[in-house]
Amino acid sequence: MPSAEPLGLVAGAGVMPLRVADAAAKTGRPIFCVLIEGFADPAGYAAYPHEVVPLGKTGRMLALLRGHGVRDLVLAGRVTRPSLLSFRFDADGVRLLARLGRGAILGGDDGLLSAGLRVLREEGFWPLGAQAVLDGLLVEEGVLTARVPDEADRADIARGVQVARALGVADVGQGCVVQQGLVLGVEAIEGTDAMLARCAGLRREGPGGVLVKLVKPRQDIRADLPVVGPETVRNAAAAGLAGIAIQARGTAGASPHAGTLVLDRVETVAAAEAAGLFLVAIRPADFLLKKENER
Amino acid sequence: MPSAEPLGLVAGAGVMPLRVADAAAKTGRPIFCVLIEGFADPAGYAAYPHEVVPLGKTGRMLALLRGHGVRDLVLAGRVTRPSLLSFRFDADGVRLLARLGRGAILGGDDGLLSAGLRVLREEGFWPLGAQAVLDGLLVEEGVLTARVPDEADRADIARGVQVARALGVADVGQGCVVQQGLVLGVEAIEGTDAMLARCAGLRREGPGGVLVKLVKPRQDIRADLPVVGPETVRNAAAAGLAGIAIQARGTAGASPHAGTLVLDRVETVAAAEAAGLFLVAIRPADFLLKKENER
Repeated sequence: MPSAEPLGLVAGAGVMPLRVADAAAKTGRPIFCVLIEGFADPAGYAAYPHEVVPLGKTGRMLALLRGHGVRDLVLAGRVTRPSLLSFRFDADGVRLLARLGRGAILGGDDGLLSAGLRVLREEGFWPLGAQAVLDGLLVEEGVLTARVPDEADRADIARGVQVARALGVADVGQGCVVQQGLVLGVEAIEGTDAMLARCAGLRREGPGGVLVKLVKPRQDIRADLPVVGPETVRNAAAAGLAGIAIQARGTAGASPHAGTLVLDRVETVAAAEAAGLFLVAIRPADFLLKKENER
Repeated sequence: MPSAEPLGLVAGAGVMPLRVADAAAKTGRPIFCVLIEGFADPAGYAAYPHEVVPLGKTGRMLALLRGHGVRDLVLAGRVTRPSLLSFRFDADGVRLLARLGRGAILGGDDGLLSAGLRVLREEGFWPLGAQAVLDGLLVEEGVLTARVPDEADRADIARGVQVARALGVADVGQGCVVQQGLVLGVEAIEGTDAMLARCAGLRREGPGGVLVKLVKPRQDIRADLPVVGPETVRNAAAAGLAGIAIQARGTAGASPHAGTLVLDRVETVAAAEAAGLFLVAIRPADFLLKKENER
């Protein structure tokens, strides 16, 4: 019975990995969690078997997962890559680092992640995305709120799609904020919330302002899909924005399992309604085409 | 005698337009300045004939320039596009706005600038870049400081070139900060100094960190070339960076008159030496090619 095989969870920061653990537990499937030291808060995982492991101790991570009979493995939660100097690699960590390759380590985040996932597969694990365990994270195309983006909002979304696409090709960030055609902010390592915070001071008087958060073109769907949640909505509202555009399910490449993940969808939509924001799941290609035609 | 014809200057914020005025005055050429209200500080231009004009009063600007016999026209200094609602357009302003076209206004900054420059040419003016009046703004390829970028710095420069190129294609910003392969910040409307300020809190322990500031691929060389100066160097040093990479003269497209402009070069290099930073003028294509070969 394959479901008796425990689910492995490598947990970074944020609520997402905890939701994955809860969802797996609800189905009765055993779970074993590796909590990345300094990112996942052990207090949240008290109900589940877990170990806290520093990021560089790759050999120890893999040994723990194997020791618990894990094959299916979810990587969830934010882990911002620290200084290479601050890694305390164990022997296996050094060997794995060599297998990742210099290009992956010094390149963009996707390069590193893809290389990491490749190594995990070679080591006999089966990496899964959070959306493979947790239902309802992916959203069908359409508007989720009472408020609907107007023509000016749609023009800002089109500009945001163009920018996010360019960023994604260079394997940087997944988000940007556009108001009245002006790109107020572009997301790099600081994250969406920090970008939203600074956009509050950059926005122009008058209406509008859209957060656009899309899947990167070469993003691995088993890790690191973009996420929005109630906190994102509240921060967008605090920045004075009109709404949020995310990538609908099945609109990124060949996989039907890619898209912007919506954490705690009921609360997220409720937060948007409370703040009077729109939340729309889009097919980015539609906006790129539209822009071309308008020229 | 063509040099008796006055030089027009439309001045935004910063020191650059003042340097242009001083350089023109030094050659004995008369000058007339239109100071954009809220951007150029009139105190600095007391020695020169000038008028302060709000951004939307395009008709008034053109009438003033014509009235002073201006044909050669330099646009210099930062002007961040305000809310469209906050423009108080005059009648000519509205007509010119219509000629700019909706795409230019709601698109990126380059689109707006190019359209604006086209309209100026149609109106009989001859737009020039600051570098056409002020010598020494463009820099030949090479290292300007005692410190030279090491191998890790060059890898960060390569990553920065890749990101800046992607941004430029989408007509956003001109700068980014990279450390140990991580993109710490990407510049949008907040400007280089604000980006550097936040990167201080985002950088990882350990060495490195490079500000890369390049010409956008479709950038009009008669306005809005990227600028670095002593302040940029001091801010990069305060953010803990190792150095700055800019675009060398003649490495952007066909024109030998494009490149990152270095304001007050002697002071800029002195500030870099004082802080122990490198300042290097690069040919971006070299770094893109290098990256390809390494794969």
